[in-house]
Amino acid sequence: MTLLYRFYNCTLVRDHALIQDDLWIRNGKIINPENIFFSEKTRADIEYDCQGALIAPGYIDLQINGAFGHDFSSADEASEEMLIKVAKLLTSHGVTAFVPTIVSSLPETYQEVLPIYKRRAGSAKDGATILGIHIEGPFIAENKRGAHRTDFLRKSECGIEDLKTCYGSFENVSIITLAPELPNMVENVIPELVARHNLVVSLGHSTATLDCGERAILAGARFITHLFNAMLPFHHRDPGLVGLLTTHPLPATTIVYYGLIVDTVHTHSAAVRLAHRVHPHGLVLVTDAVPALGFPDGTYHMGAHEIVVNGKRATIAGTETLCGSIASLAECVQYMRQALLDGETNKEIINEKDSTQFVVESIEAATLHPAQVLHIENQKGTLSFGADADFIFLDKNLNILSTFIAGEQAWTVTNQWSIDNLQTKSSQ
Amino acid sequence: MTLLYRFYNCTLVRDHALIQDDLWIRNGKIINPENIFFSEKTRADIEYDCQGALIAPGYIDLQINGAFGHDFSSADEASEEMLIKVAKLLTSHGVTAFVPTIVSSLPETYQEVLPIYKRRAGSAKDGATILGIHIEGPFIAENKRGAHRTDFLRKSECGIEDLKTCYGSFENVSIITLAPELPNMVENVIPELVARHNLVVSLGHSTATLDCGERAILAGARFITHLFNAMLPFHHRDPGLVGLLTTHPLPATTIVYYGLIVDTVHTHSAAVRLAHRVHPHGLVLVTDAVPALGFPDGTYHMGAHEIVVNGKRATIAGTETLCGSIASLAECVQYMRQALLDGETNKEIINEKDSTQFVVESIEAATLHPAQVLHIENQKGTLSFGADADFIFLDKNLNILSTFIAGEQAWTVTNQWSIDNLQTKSSQ
Repeated sequence: MTLLYRFYNCTLVRDHALIQDDLWIRNGKIINPENIFFSEKTRADIEYDCQGALIAPGYIDLQINGAFGHDFSSADEASEEMLIKVAKLLTSHGVTAFVPTIVSSLPETYQEVLPIYKRRAGSAKDGATILGIHIEGPFIAENKRGAHRTDFLRKSECGIEDLKTCYGSFENVSIITLAPELPNMVENVIPELVARHNLVVSLGHSTATLDCGERAILAGARFITHLFNAMLPFHHRDPGLVGLLTTHPLPATTIVYYGLIVDTVHTHSAAVRLAHRVHPHGLVLVTDAVPALGFPDGTYHMGAHEIVVNGKRATIAGTETLCGSIASLAECVQYMRQALLDGETNKEIINEKDSTQFVVESIEAATLHPAQVLHIENQKGTLSFGADADFIFLDKNLNILSTFIAGEQAWTVTNQWSIDNLQTKSSQ
Repeated sequence: MTLLYRFYNCTLVRDHALIQDDLWIRNGKIINPENIFFSEKTRADIEYDCQGALIAPGYIDLQINGAFGHDFSSADEASEEMLIKVAKLLTSHGVTAFVPTIVSSLPETYQEVLPIYKRRAGSAKDGATILGIHIEGPFIAENKRGAHRTDFLRKSECGIEDLKTCYGSFENVSIITLAPELPNMVENVIPELVARHNLVVSLGHSTATLDCGERAILAGARFITHLFNAMLPFHHRDPGLVGLLTTHPLPATTIVYYGLIVDTVHTHSAAVRLAHRVHPHGLVLVTDAVPALGFPDGTYHMGAHEIVVNGKRATIAGTETLCGSIASLAECVQYMRQALLDGETNKEIINEKDSTQFVVESIEAATLHPAQVLHIENQKGTLSFGADADFIFLDKNLNILSTFIAGEQAWTVTNQWSIDNLQTKSSQ
C-alpha cells in the first residue's frame, strides 16, 4: 500500500528553469507520472494545493561547523543526539542534507568525534540527512589558517600515513580540506584520498600558486574551500587558487567547484558577481556556520575558541578575525540573488526572464552544485524523476515556507502551510 | 573623379562577426555598395584580390609611451617630425591611430611637450592618426605610482585649477589618468574635465576603494588605466577598482571600459580570462609601450628613467619594477586570443564557432572598444559604412600583412601584399 501523492498549483525548479508542473511522490521518491498513467492506469491517492508556492530541491550545506549553540568540533558535545537535534532544527532553514564540519583539532579529538557522526538518511522525524563529515584541517598553511589554532596544525612529511595517524579513520568522512602546497599532497595524499578512499578533496587555507592548484586538480581535487577567504588574493601575475575558476589545462571532464560564503560579511557582492560570471556552474553556497547560527548576539564556544557574535559578524574573541558565518543557507540564497540583481547596469533588462534566471542559479548553488561535488546529483539537489523527495516550499522572496524530507513534511513556517491544510478536501 | 575601389576574396570583421563580403572604398571612406548600384548604376574602378586575407579595422592604441627608440615624455625629443616618424613605423604593427602618452612629468615639461603633439589625420604618407594626448599622472597615488617618479607627483588641493597650472592647456589632450581618491577629484576635477573640457577621465595609479571608484564613474570617468596594475588587488571584502567590472549602481548608459596589458608579462592569462568573462565589452587592449618597443634587448631612456629591456620585460634599471611593455598591439591581440583559447576545458568545443568568436573579440578589443572610449566609434575601429577606411590585412594567425590608412596602403609585410600585386589585371 504505497500511496501516490500529487502536489499541484506550484512552480518547480527543474532542468535549470522554473516550470509550471505538478510534483508526484511515492515511496519517498520523485516519480514520473506518465509512467503511472500508462502502466498502472491509476491516479493520485492524495493531492495537495500548494497555493502557488515555488518548490525547490532541499538545500545542501557542505560546510557547517555547528548551529543552534552546538559545536561539531567539541568532543564534549559530540553525540548522535546532538547531531539529530541540529539536523531537525536545520529544516527551518530549508536544509535537507548537510556535511558537519570539524575545524583543525588534536588527533584525540578526531578519533573521539569522527566515529560518532555517521552518515544517516534524513526523515521528517530526525531531520536533515547526514552526508558524512567535512574535515577542514589540520593539514593547512599556517599563515592562511584564519580562525584555526596554530598549535593544532600538522605537516604531511609521511604523506597519507600522517593523515591516517591524525584522523584514525576515513570511514565517516566525505570531504577533506587541505593545503596542496604542503609536502606530498599532490604526489601522494590527494590521489590516495580520491582513488583509494573515495573522498572529495577540497583546496583551502592555502598559499598555493595557480600552478600548484592546477596540479592538485589534476591529482583529483575537485572543490575549493570558501573561495577568496584564507587563500592568496587574486593577483594578476599569479592568480593563485582563485585563478582555477578560469584556468583549465585539465581533462575535459574536470569541473572545479568552489564554496562561497555569501553572507554579506565574508564576500562583497561584487566578488560574488565576479565569481558567478567567471564560473557560474561551479558555484556552491556554503554557510561556514558557527554554533551561534540561529542564536542572537553574544559569546559562544567553537573548538578551542571563544567567539563573539555581533550583528552579522562572528569573530574570535578579542580579535577581528572572522571565524565563520551566522547566515542561514536560506539567507545565503537570498543574498546571492540580490547580488546578481544588483549587478545589472540596465534596470530595464531585469525583466521576468532575468530575475527567473537569477532565482534558478541561486537555488542551484545550494542544491544541484553541492550534490554534484559529492557525486549524488541523481539522488539529491534535484527534482528530477527518481531523486529523493527532499524539497522545500518558497515564497517569491525565497523565504522558506515548508520543508519536506523523503516526501514527508518536516517543518512549516505557519499552520497555513501544514500538510493538513494543503490537502485537497475531495481527496481526504 | 573619385575612384571606387573594391576589395574582394576576403573575410571582414564586421557587426561582431566574421563575414564573407567585399569591402568598398571611396574618398577614404568605407561605403555601402548598394547605394552605388542603385543611384549611380556604376561599378568599381579598381578591384583588389585579397587572396583570402582577413580584413579588420586598424588597431587603436590608447596608451603608448613611446616606440622605436623615441620617448614621448622627453622635452628634448618632442617634435612633430619625431611623432610622424613613430606614426609611420606603427603601421607595421597594424596601428592606424594612437594616443601618445606622457608619464608624470614636471609642469615645464608638459608646457613644452603638449603643444607639439597636435591631433592630425593619418595618411599612407604620414602614418597613423594622432588622436590627442593621454596624460598619465602626475595626480596619482604615491604608493601606486609604479614607475612614475615620486618627486613629480602632485596633489589637487585646489581642484581643477591645480591641473590647469600643471598642464598649461587641455587643448591637445584626450585622456587624463588620475587617482580619484585625491582631494577634489570626484567633486570637482572629474566633472570639470568631462563636462567642460570634453576629456576622457581614466582611473589608475590609485588606492581607490570600490565605493570611491563608483563615485568617480558617476562623476563622469569612463576608463580604467591598465586594470590590475598599479591599483589595489581585487579583495573579496573590498574589490577596489577591479570591482567596477561587476558593480553598476550606475546610470544605465554608463559602460566602464578598462585597459589591459596582454603582453604575457603584466597580466597572467587567467587574469585576462577573468576580466574578459566578467566584462567582455569593456576590454581595451593597450600596449603601455616604452621607447624600446620595436628594439632588441638593451638600456633605453624613458622620462627621467633609465630602463632595461630583457626578453619580454622592461624594468627600471637596477630594480624589478615593470615600466611598460614591449609587445606590439598586434602581438597583444594574438596573446589575448590565445589566452581565451587556453581557458576552454573541453577541447571539443573549440570548434569553428568558438575560435571565430575569440578572433572577433580579440580584434574588437583593439579596434571598436578603444574607439568607443573616445566616442569615435562611427569613424574609427569599425568597418561599418561611413567609417574611415583605416584597415588591416591579417593572416589566420593574426599576423599583420598590410595596413591601409584613409583607403591607401601605408605598409605591407612583403611585396606579395603590395597594392600593385593585388590589383586585378582586368581592372588595370
